[in-house]
Amino acid sequence: MPHRERVLMGPGPGNPHPEVIEAFGRPVLGHLDPDFLSLLDETNDRLRQVWRTANPLTFPVSGTGSAGMEAAFVNVVRDGDAVVVGVNGVFGERMCDVAARCGAEVVRVEAPWGTPIDPEALLAAHPDPAVIAVVHAETSTGVRNDIAPLADRPDGALLLVDCVTSLGGIPVEIDEWGADLAYSGTQKCLGVPPGLAPLTVSPAALDRVVERPRSWYLDLNMIARYVSGEGARAYHHTAPISMIYGLHAGLGVLLEEGLEASWERHAACGQLLHDGLEAMGLELFAAEGHRLPELTTVWVPDDLPAELDDAAIRARLLGDYGIEIGGGLGEFAGRVWRIGLMGHTARRRNVTLFLAALGEILGR
Amino acid sequence: MPHRERVLMGPGPGNPHPEVIEAFGRPVLGHLDPDFLSLLDETNDRLRQVWRTANPLTFPVSGTGSAGMEAAFVNVVRDGDAVVVGVNGVFGERMCDVAARCGAEVVRVEAPWGTPIDPEALLAAHPDPAVIAVVHAETSTGVRNDIAPLADRPDGALLLVDCVTSLGGIPVEIDEWGADLAYSGTQKCLGVPPGLAPLTVSPAALDRVVERPRSWYLDLNMIARYVSGEGARAYHHTAPISMIYGLHAGLGVLLEEGLEASWERHAACGQLLHDGLEAMGLELFAAEGHRLPELTTVWVPDDLPAELDDAAIRARLLGDYGIEIGGGLGEFAGRVWRIGLMGHTARRRNVTLFLAALGEILGR
Repeated sequence: MPHRERVLMGPGPGNPHPEVIEAFGRPVLGHLDPDFLSLLDETNDRLRQVWRTANPLTFPVSGTGSAGMEAAFVNVVRDGDAVVVGVNGVFGERMCDVAARCGAEVVRVEAPWGTPIDPEALLAAHPDPAVIAVVHAETSTGVRNDIAPLADRPDGALLLVDCVTSLGGIPVEIDEWGADLAYSGTQKCLGVPPGLAPLTVSPAALDRVVERPRSWYLDLNMIARYVSGEGARAYHHTAPISMIYGLHAGLGVLLEEGLEASWERHAACGQLLHDGLEAMGLELFAAEGHRLPELTTVWVPDDLPAELDDAAIRARLLGDYGIEIGGGLGEFAGRVWRIGLMGHTARRRNVTLFLAALGEILGR
Repeated sequence: MPHRERVLMGPGPGNPHPEVIEAFGRPVLGHLDPDFLSLLDETNDRLRQVWRTANPLTFPVSGTGSAGMEAAFVNVVRDGDAVVVGVNGVFGERMCDVAARCGAEVVRVEAPWGTPIDPEALLAAHPDPAVIAVVHAETSTGVRNDIAPLADRPDGALLLVDCVTSLGGIPVEIDEWGADLAYSGTQKCLGVPPGLAPLTVSPAALDRVVERPRSWYLDLNMIARYVSGEGARAYHHTAPISMIYGLHAGLGVLLEEGLEASWERHAACGQLLHDGLEAMGLELFAAEGHRLPELTTVWVPDDLPAELDDAAIRARLLGDYGIEIGGGLGEFAGRVWRIGLMGHTARRRNVTLFLAALGEILGR
């Protein structure tokens, strides 16, 4: 089966760091092997550094980012709990769906796609919410929502943050924010293929975990007995060994570069791309001041030659240049592009290549 | 971090086929890339051959074997449904836990650990069950439960089978059994590292999927729109690309060998091990006639020298020989060993090595 190489500039996965693919070649160990448990412990230590947290329960959920979302909600939401959710894109919508399946009374706080959620509106939405949930980096719109103001929330409200597209790419400060539950995905700014969802859980959230969550697979009571370093490890499910090797290696690359240096690299690449697109006469979609550097959204020009449209341009990028970008979602399908610069993909070379390729196709 | 190589003769993971690790090196593609979708389709075709089924909805769940179990139950169980579960080990117990969290009224049909479930007892347990569930190969005891007699069950009862440790190792015949839902894990007889749970769903089961399952991540209504070959693929969650490369390659190795040849290889290795252990004076744990070749259980001898016990012997196997085997679970912890010969590990050489190493340690 032929298998081409791509420059992955869609909404994720990005290209993995070469060291990650190398790590996939490590000999497979059993999930209770002392050597594997040391590597898992070190992976979780690295995650705590990247999350900027001291939370003891910090580990990769054995599933992709959406499994992280489900793990965050299913463990703390009880029937009838008020859960305030910020909704300004697909992933805020997904949170509402997941929370409702967990039995929540969902209180939506909306903002138009492309604009950020007002943190004050989240805080004012309900007098006594069990959870306030918001997406930090909305992958569907390229918008950054402010999390820091949510530190001043009512007692008893857990703060749940989706950091799938933010972790490693822009500042994430779990302990400074006082966030209680946060999850990410490996395939975005961490530079690892998809398959795991790093999760961090504050002691306060752990105290609130329901006795028997609706999900057995994601039950934190049981998983904590395997992943936490105390005493004998109790088998829960078989850990995805090779993926954890990859994550361990990807976090190593990130921490060797330095978290701040990675944020700066993402910021610089994003700025170059934003400037280049505007110089080409294109209009950015996300509200100024809330644009993600790692995921840029831009309107498909409406003065295209007759033979070109969204799909034709993306097909030419993929076919002629081996560059993947993403299309718009929902009502913006066909009208917006989503261009990722995440993890290993966030290099100046890729910005230059993409802008030149798009220029050739558009004749600008 | 040092990283030793092991001969993985525990209850799983086994050693992966070298071709699988090679496949992990394939360039990562996006989950909507046409090249990736072709590879996913071919993976699912290969799975249908291995499952011996024509079920259109056959694909790897993005989680380990237990995620497959949860996917099977959470999609078809409604509040108050009678779910008959065969319980003769840890994984039958786990089914009861998972089914109860899905709202089932669980009807247990028990057999002592080490002995098989009576299929007639499963059929007689409830007049009108929604689901009859049983583990084909009990990894905790090394027992094979008979599935074929369950083809003659009451109309309307879905047959749900755990094939985590059986698929690829002993005959699994989904369509001949009339099984409606079955799942496996990659890290056993398929020779792939842990991380995915192959699942197959009959059209009858698909008709019974609840409108909005309790799990968003495992919702078959939505996943089917991504994995099924018809028309445009709707994004649900980001597929674990590299793990699917590995599964694709592992299934290729298995089908090139031939499914029957793989069953024969596992049977021959298991027989050699059983004979060798008995020749050494050890007593097998699982009931004769129901012993799995790929997972052998044997009593820890009770006439050991004072300095040796279960843990000391397993530590010497691991430390001096790099061989991992498993200990007993539940009341058999410390009293039984579980020795796997799964997938790539199921080679005569490994049987010979293990028996010789154990003989050196025991002085027999």
